[in-house]
Amino acid sequence: MRNLKKLVGAFSGRYDYLVLTKGPNLAYAVGMPDALGLVVDLRSGYSILYVSRLDYSRAKATTAVDKVVAVASAEIPPRRPGEELVVAPSILEALKSVVRERVASDNKEVGVDVSGEVAELRAAKEEWEVELIKAALRVTESVYVKLGQMRLVGMRERDVAGLVYRWFMEEGADGVAFDPIVASGPNGAYPHYRFGDRRIEYGDYVVVDIGAKKGVYCSDMTRTFAPGRFGVLKDAMYAVYEAVKAAEKAAREGVAAAEVDKAARDVIAEYGFAQYFIHSTGHGVGVEVHEPPRLFVTSKDVLKKGHVVTIEPGVYIEGVGGVRIEDMVYIDGGAAVLNRVPHIL
Amino acid sequence: MRNLKKLVGAFSGRYDYLVLTKGPNLAYAVGMPDALGLVVDLRSGYSILYVSRLDYSRAKATTAVDKVVAVASAEIPPRRPGEELVVAPSILEALKSVVRERVASDNKEVGVDVSGEVAELRAAKEEWEVELIKAALRVTESVYVKLGQMRLVGMRERDVAGLVYRWFMEEGADGVAFDPIVASGPNGAYPHYRFGDRRIEYGDYVVVDIGAKKGVYCSDMTRTFAPGRFGVLKDAMYAVYEAVKAAEKAAREGVAAAEVDKAARDVIAEYGFAQYFIHSTGHGVGVEVHEPPRLFVTSKDVLKKGHVVTIEPGVYIEGVGGVRIEDMVYIDGGAAVLNRVPHIL
Repeated sequence: MRNLKKLVGAFSGRYDYLVLTKGPNLAYAVGMPDALGLVVDLRSGYSILYVSRLDYSRAKATTAVDKVVAVASAEIPPRRPGEELVVAPSILEALKSVVRERVASDNKEVGVDVSGEVAELRAAKEEWEVELIKAALRVTESVYVKLGQMRLVGMRERDVAGLVYRWFMEEGADGVAFDPIVASGPNGAYPHYRFGDRRIEYGDYVVVDIGAKKGVYCSDMTRTFAPGRFGVLKDAMYAVYEAVKAAEKAAREGVAAAEVDKAARDVIAEYGFAQYFIHSTGHGVGVEVHEPPRLFVTSKDVLKKGHVVTIEPGVYIEGVGGVRIEDMVYIDGGAAVLNRVPHIL
Repeated sequence: MRNLKKLVGAFSGRYDYLVLTKGPNLAYAVGMPDALGLVVDLRSGYSILYVSRLDYSRAKATTAVDKVVAVASAEIPPRRPGEELVVAPSILEALKSVVRERVASDNKEVGVDVSGEVAELRAAKEEWEVELIKAALRVTESVYVKLGQMRLVGMRERDVAGLVYRWFMEEGADGVAFDPIVASGPNGAYPHYRFGDRRIEYGDYVVVDIGAKKGVYCSDMTRTFAPGRFGVLKDAMYAVYEAVKAAEKAAREGVAAAEVDKAARDVIAEYGFAQYFIHSTGHGVGVEVHEPPRLFVTSKDVLKKGHVVTIEPGVYIEGVGGVRIEDMVYIDGGAAVLNRVPHIL
């Protein structure tokens, strides 16, 4: 609701209506990613949320919009007393009929794309949003603490993933921000590997990249467990650790996101691993686990107050394995690291 | 790979190139939902898969395409020996440059939307696809068997969800088809409720809707646990049970999907619950958990050999709770029910 007011404040005076149809924007505006569409009359602030018929009563109970309207392709079953229902072949047709009807009568321009501006609003988090992200991160960190106390050697990657899921739910997560990555030994060379049947061996580096949700807000964190802590990746571990520290030092309000990427990349290069750092240094996190700003060499983003971004350099060597360490930082003047768990477990 | 050949067979002779960019279609064609795009020269069968740079080596290792090309916004780090890299601002630009270059020289028409035809191909499952769906369903059913042996009373919904996730992974799931629904008591009135802090009480009806994945294939199944099995929903349970049986009897090759919906809806209506059955009777399941055909009154789909669809009538009463039973059936002449676990646990 607070975000809905923020959206109205940002767009009123410039447009008559705001129409949102993308899941993450609907999550942001009204907390319901599976709604179909939102129409806000920016002159009055009056909001109408469109949902599937089976979500009608849930939308009424859990969102704070002025009106909920169900959309269905037929009036079967017959509508119940008080149920607002639009019969339309699709949500787009339902939205168009409402918006066009009104806009046509005013003789105004239709269809200015404001998705970029919505993304910018979403990127600058309010304090209460940061608190939710921190709560999601606390749940995530509690799992790392538990994993750190276990002997992972002998477990299958999928067993570790199963524990992560279970502990998330037990600790109060409202869902997962993304499916867990538990990449052991050579599997660690694939940054987006998920998990499989491989048993963790002594000497493996095990990349664990997980994130819980609180409300609709995500967390995102990586630690690399190294039961033996030796072999070729030992140097990579130090390189990545130093790169994280350098990027966190470089990150602050007003700094180009590309600069933060460079800070991490330079350290990795000093250690001789430049060509093995094959992704960006980080990204924004909010109602989506990947959202602006992007911390990469080609990024034109500038870090601003309220940004919550990951710092996650990594080294990936095919046939050998990988190392990644990922923190979350909050930009408010400097960069406050939101993580409490050590970088090397 | 078998699906890629099927796609080539379906489109060659009619078009020169097939371009796929949607996650589910990429999962179907090459088993990699997080690839960015696939271009197939339909005259030669030669296939090029575009991926993010961090997925390049995983794509090389896990897909059977002729060529993998990485897309990045800059050549940083420098490409490694043998690495195919396109520097482009977006995947669309990368795809366009390849396709247009070729097509322009042939002076042919560009951009026929074949997504409907691809959806039809995907809907008609081959035997090996049905086997994967069945394997995913076996994992799912093993969880119902375990839950059926437990005393759910006193557990929080989120504790049940945590067990579901953990057991899925331990039993060999490659992921979840969707986040678990554990809706107890009044929460059962929301068909798409997820899970929360509520403790299950004696007398509750608890709707548990879950599905594991095997490879990229989904399963989808619901049972309603009723520790007390009394109250107003007792009749609803019988209504839903009878509706499932009626729909499964009606489902067969050549029958309109709307007819199957009607068979379930008529039973629910006989029991006096017509207005509480607020969604369709079922949907196709494959690489997506919801895909064509759709089993609803307005559906124009006809059941065909190879379709795998859910049968899932439900009754939802606000303030009271809900009942849903969901099976999966395979159309091959008649409808073979793929589930083995009883309807009422």
